[in-house]
Amino acid sequence: MAAKITGILTPHMVPLDANGRIHEAELRRYVDWLIARGVHGLYPNGSTGEFIRFTVEERRRIVKIVCEQAAGRVLVLAGAAEANVRETVAACEAYADYGARAVAIVSPFYFRLGPESVYAYFREIALASPIDVTLYNIPMFASPIDVPTIQRLAELERIVGIKDSSGDLAFMMRMIAAIRPVRPDFSFLTGWEAVLVPMLLIGADGGTHATSGVVPELTRMMFDLTGARDLDQAMKLQYRLLELFDAMLYSADFPEGFRAAVELRGFAMGRGRQPLSAAQQVDRERLQRVLRCLLADFGYVDPPPEGCPPRRPDAKAAQVNEIVGEVVEALRHKGVL
Amino acid sequence: MAAKITGILTPHMVPLDANGRIHEAELRRYVDWLIARGVHGLYPNGSTGEFIRFTVEERRRIVKIVCEQAAGRVLVLAGAAEANVRETVAACEAYADYGARAVAIVSPFYFRLGPESVYAYFREIALASPIDVTLYNIPMFASPIDVPTIQRLAELERIVGIKDSSGDLAFMMRMIAAIRPVRPDFSFLTGWEAVLVPMLLIGADGGTHATSGVVPELTRMMFDLTGARDLDQAMKLQYRLLELFDAMLYSADFPEGFRAAVELRGFAMGRGRQPLSAAQQVDRERLQRVLRCLLADFGYVDPPPEGCPPRRPDAKAAQVNEIVGEVVEALRHKGVL
Amino acid sequence: MAAKITGILTPHMVPLDANGRIHEAELRRYVDWLIARGVHGLYPNGSTGEFIRFTVEERRRIVKIVCEQAAGRVLVLAGAAEANVRETVAACEAYADYGARAVAIVSPFYFRLGPESVYAYFREIALASPIDVTLYNIPMFASPIDVPTIQRLAELERIVGIKDSSGDLAFMMRMIAAIRPVRPDFSFLTGWEAVLVPMLLIGADGGTHATSGVVPELTRMMFDLTGARDLDQAMKLQYRLLELFDAMLYSADFPEGFRAAVELRGFAMGRGRQPLSAAQQVDRERLQRVLRCLLADFGYVDPPPEGCPPRRPDAKAAQVNEIVGEVVEALRHKGVL
Amino acid sequence: MAAKITGILTPHMVPLDANGRIHEAELRRYVDWLIARGVHGLYPNGSTGEFIRFTVEERRRIVKIVCEQAAGRVLVLAGAAEANVRETVAACEAYADYGARAVAIVSPFYFRLGPESVYAYFREIALASPIDVTLYNIPMFASPIDVPTIQRLAELERIVGIKDSSGDLAFMMRMIAAIRPVRPDFSFLTGWEAVLVPMLLIGADGGTHATSGVVPELTRMMFDLTGARDLDQAMKLQYRLLELFDAMLYSADFPEGFRAAVELRGFAMGRGRQPLSAAQQVDRERLQRVLRCLLADFGYVDPPPEGCPPRRPDAKAAQVNEIVGEVVEALRHKGVL
Repeated sequence: MAAKITGILTPHMVPLDANGRIHEAELRRYVDWLIARGVHGLYPNGSTGEFIRFTVEERRRIVKIVCEQAAGRVLVLAGAAEANVRETVAACEAYADYGARAVAIVSPFYFRLGPESVYAYFREIALASPIDVTLYNIPMFASPIDVPTIQRLAELERIVGIKDSSGDLAFMMRMIAAIRPVRPDFSFLTGWEAVLVPMLLIGADGGTHATSGVVPELTRMMFDLTGARDLDQAMKLQYRLLELFDAMLYSADFPEGFRAAVELRGFAMGRGRQPLSAAQQVDRERLQRVLRCLLADFGYVDPPPEGCPPRRPDAKAAQVNEIVGEVVEALRHKGVL
Repeated sequence: MAAKITGILTPHMVPLDANGRIHEAELRRYVDWLIARGVHGLYPNGSTGEFIRFTVEERRRIVKIVCEQAAGRVLVLAGAAEANVRETVAACEAYADYGARAVAIVSPFYFRLGPESVYAYFREIALASPIDVTLYNIPMFASPIDVPTIQRLAELERIVGIKDSSGDLAFMMRMIAAIRPVRPDFSFLTGWEAVLVPMLLIGADGGTHATSGVVPELTRMMFDLTGARDLDQAMKLQYRLLELFDAMLYSADFPEGFRAAVELRGFAMGRGRQPLSAAQQVDRERLQRVLRCLLADFGYVDPPPEGCPPRRPDAKAAQVNEIVGEVVEALRHKGVL
Repeated sequence: MAAKITGILTPHMVPLDANGRIHEAELRRYVDWLIARGVHGLYPNGSTGEFIRFTVEERRRIVKIVCEQAAGRVLVLAGAAEANVRETVAACEAYADYGARAVAIVSPFYFRLGPESVYAYFREIALASPIDVTLYNIPMFASPIDVPTIQRLAELERIVGIKDSSGDLAFMMRMIAAIRPVRPDFSFLTGWEAVLVPMLLIGADGGTHATSGVVPELTRMMFDLTGARDLDQAMKLQYRLLELFDAMLYSADFPEGFRAAVELRGFAMGRGRQPLSAAQQVDRERLQRVLRCLLADFGYVDPPPEGCPPRRPDAKAAQVNEIVGEVVEALRHKGVL
Repeated sequence: MAAKITGILTPHMVPLDANGRIHEAELRRYVDWLIARGVHGLYPNGSTGEFIRFTVEERRRIVKIVCEQAAGRVLVLAGAAEANVRETVAACEAYADYGARAVAIVSPFYFRLGPESVYAYFREIALASPIDVTLYNIPMFASPIDVPTIQRLAELERIVGIKDSSGDLAFMMRMIAAIRPVRPDFSFLTGWEAVLVPMLLIGADGGTHATSGVVPELTRMMFDLTGARDLDQAMKLQYRLLELFDAMLYSADFPEGFRAAVELRGFAMGRGRQPLSAAQQVDRERLQRVLRCLLADFGYVDPPPEGCPPRRPDAKAAQVNEIVGEVVEALRHKGVL
């Protein structure tokens, strides 16, 4: 039996070239960079990887490139959800050939399906897949997978884990309590890095989260510190990661804030496939200035030439700046300036 | 300028053959049948048409078949959303070639995007599309389109209408109040047939809804009666349609209940692409018995040989039957029987 | 048997004096004014009447004043929900003494209870109440009452109606379809005036809604026009009411926008019991300017000395004004100005 | 300055006598029992204490009894929310007289208010209160208090802490990050015991949660083990508490499951003020059998004479029992049996 899937797995983004196509060289360089900074695995075609904005052929090519470039140095967990069971199984077959360790299948989306449908869907895939399958629960975007359904699905040998992006610790505990006693090999991965350390403490096996594509050193360090039970240090980093995470997540529609951050780490990500309005482009530039300072604080990038605000700035000055910025943008946005 | 889009447009389902492929002959027969029963237009690749469960190539083929078969007798509004703007525009070009009147583009789904992103997305498509575009707002499945965003988008000539499936009358009124004075040609279509007649009364131009694929005669009649201001009759039918609609919508994960109903009208729909569990198959058979009686009540199909329960059945007997049904299924479902 | 409850019932607000106490004289004057403008009934201690912000003793006094002042000219439907069943029944007894036609009991709030609890709660009250009871369903604030529960409760003779504030037409139709055949005397009242005319068209018996406390003439006219099947006129008014309603509902936390509007009709409402921040007070003044123009448009009040903007103002000028207004307030709010 | 509020504070229930009145003797006995089992404080008139189902006078009496009985042995945090600011301040004054350490004020409920209103409400109370105030955030029942609002309120000296029942760890971290640097005395308490240990690990000061009224020894032990950084043991208990918590929370409308559990610890709780339907009474008996076994497993009570099922029972037998139980209840519920 293959080893249990554990550690930090990066649902990486895909650099695009000037024509909006996959930028293969940059993707390969990004894969090497992530591996060099300690991630335990790569997760192409995840939500952060915007699987939904690529074509079937592009999704295949992304996995192929990543498997080739990883070349066995780290495992590959390949997002394989396609239009229907038949297409998804075909992707599973391809990804098995490319050398992926397992596939990750997001629960059916667009339609919100009930537990019976979710069960039937995963069951049919698992019975036909030549490669191990992990479930992917992300209730804010896709049909929720509840604990009884996970229990039923864990009876199928091909299903070896779940990635849960709900961020709900009690839900993670309920899953672990229900399944670990009967399936010790089953892997529980959190997709909500805002609480990565607490999730590891209650027994999660790892994390697969967008932030690890921005600061892989940091999330790897948090994983190792928690494993070594150096909680004071781990929690300190968790608080700093939360600040960075919130800035990336709440300042732009997901995952644009993460794309802006990966650029700061030195990768040419290209214009995203979801177009940005003029107002959003202004927002994005402002966000990058904030992110540059946060990343400089970790020592990962150089601070901007104009310097960064003190960590706890004079409140009034900050407010005036913020308001002036909002006004200018609002005026621009409404076409007045 | 092309005529405003009005009337009953059917977001029809797609019959599948024994291999799970598009059953072209049956689809053509279904198109003819719908046209013969009075629908004003056809809407391939809608939600009811499960666009998301077909491949890109299949979606093209469905529109091609429908345009050919309609042959100008009724208009075709083709669902054209693909993985990204570029792919969507390519679909728009193809559907223009096939002779569609316009395309319908669902708001970005999976990710929940904010108004600026929704605006930027539709704007980029509208500027590149060679064919008129209608927006498709279905907030339970996709990013919501709010009134200010619709107003901004209505400034683009290519955008000629919106289909709204929220079922919220006040929202429909807000849209009409904001846009009709400046764009009298803009079409407002409701996707929530539960309130079709009230929507028409407040000024909606038509409906594009799943039930019209099951009882096209009925929804056409409701449209005509409302237009003729025969409200007593229109409302009576609205109440009867609601009963049918609720049965189809709430007894199975959408749109399986509608598939079960279309079969009763005489079409071989095939096994759907979303697999059903054993328990769901039992449910589906029970649902079909209920639907057969509802449709027989309209005179659209023959009642089952065993007859139908009285419209207001003896309560206690119904309860016992229902409970016994639930028990047997629950036992089966849990593998006890 | 008492007559079925129908028509426009006003969940009126309560004027307060300079000490924040009930302003009895002004309340009596307001009651007379509402009756003179044609409302069919008064509904003290509704949500709009902020029942929750008064003490038990005050709630009693409000109903007493209203019953006395109405003096049989119109019916009184008295909000009677208290801390628990025993206290609620005591209120029912008092309101029966005061001469109310019936009480309205909101579904249990704070805790979100399931259908069984909702049923048990209303059942116990209905069995002990000496006065007819109407259910009050307002799912955004209180435990929802679903159709099966309403059906069960409609078996109790004491329960004679429901006020539903969900604004969901299909839900109203489901209730009517389930209950009217067996309880023709059961009254269905909508609390969502945004869709008052459509609700009446599908068979609702009346409306009990905040706006009728601001423009009682208008809502009464809409009721009469719909009854007379003058739909063109009724719908025109419905659109105009919607604009007014949206301004009152979405420009301040409910029901402060309605209080601001009642003041414009000439009543001294006093400072509300929910305190306003400095920024909110500025917002309120701005709202009143907007409302004054909307009400002047109906001819109900004089326009402000400075005049009103044209109904479809030059967009750019409006935007600049709006933005400048927002900026000044934001600066004030943050203590910068 | 008074000491920071920390530790396990119990939002205890209130025993009722045969007439449904406060059972003072039993309440005093319960207070002694809780103190003897190690809780750091008592929290009368919390959500678990069903403050909303008591009258103003009863709420006063409950706090008076608890303060008297605690007699300084542990602190009292008294729930003081009344109908409006004036009434709430009067309660604060009374509770200061009784000797409470502080009051807890739930955010405005019924109406869902925005941040400005929430701010204005708490500010006005804090400025008038003679006793320290803690905020109480429970977004599932009351208007949410967001981080910027908490920051603004933390500028007021009288406000000394917050109880948050959202269960969201990242939210707790955001509050702590924003406020602790400037107000080290500000107390952060979690109301979501499902994740008590993780909350303490990220820096929360304590917990005030319903389960501590059922198994005070256990939650105290979890607090102490976490403080001593004996995480293995603390987490083991957290998993066991979760099982108990889920049973109490999800098997009945809150807080009836907790009442059923406190009875098992030897207190005569009386019939609750929210009536139970016949079906709910059957459910409650079944729940008590489950809870008895869970509590017996901890050694807190004796197992039932008939014994308990093995912790991981034979699945099929359990299912049959469960189904049979459901059937019988459903039949009873529908009046068939």
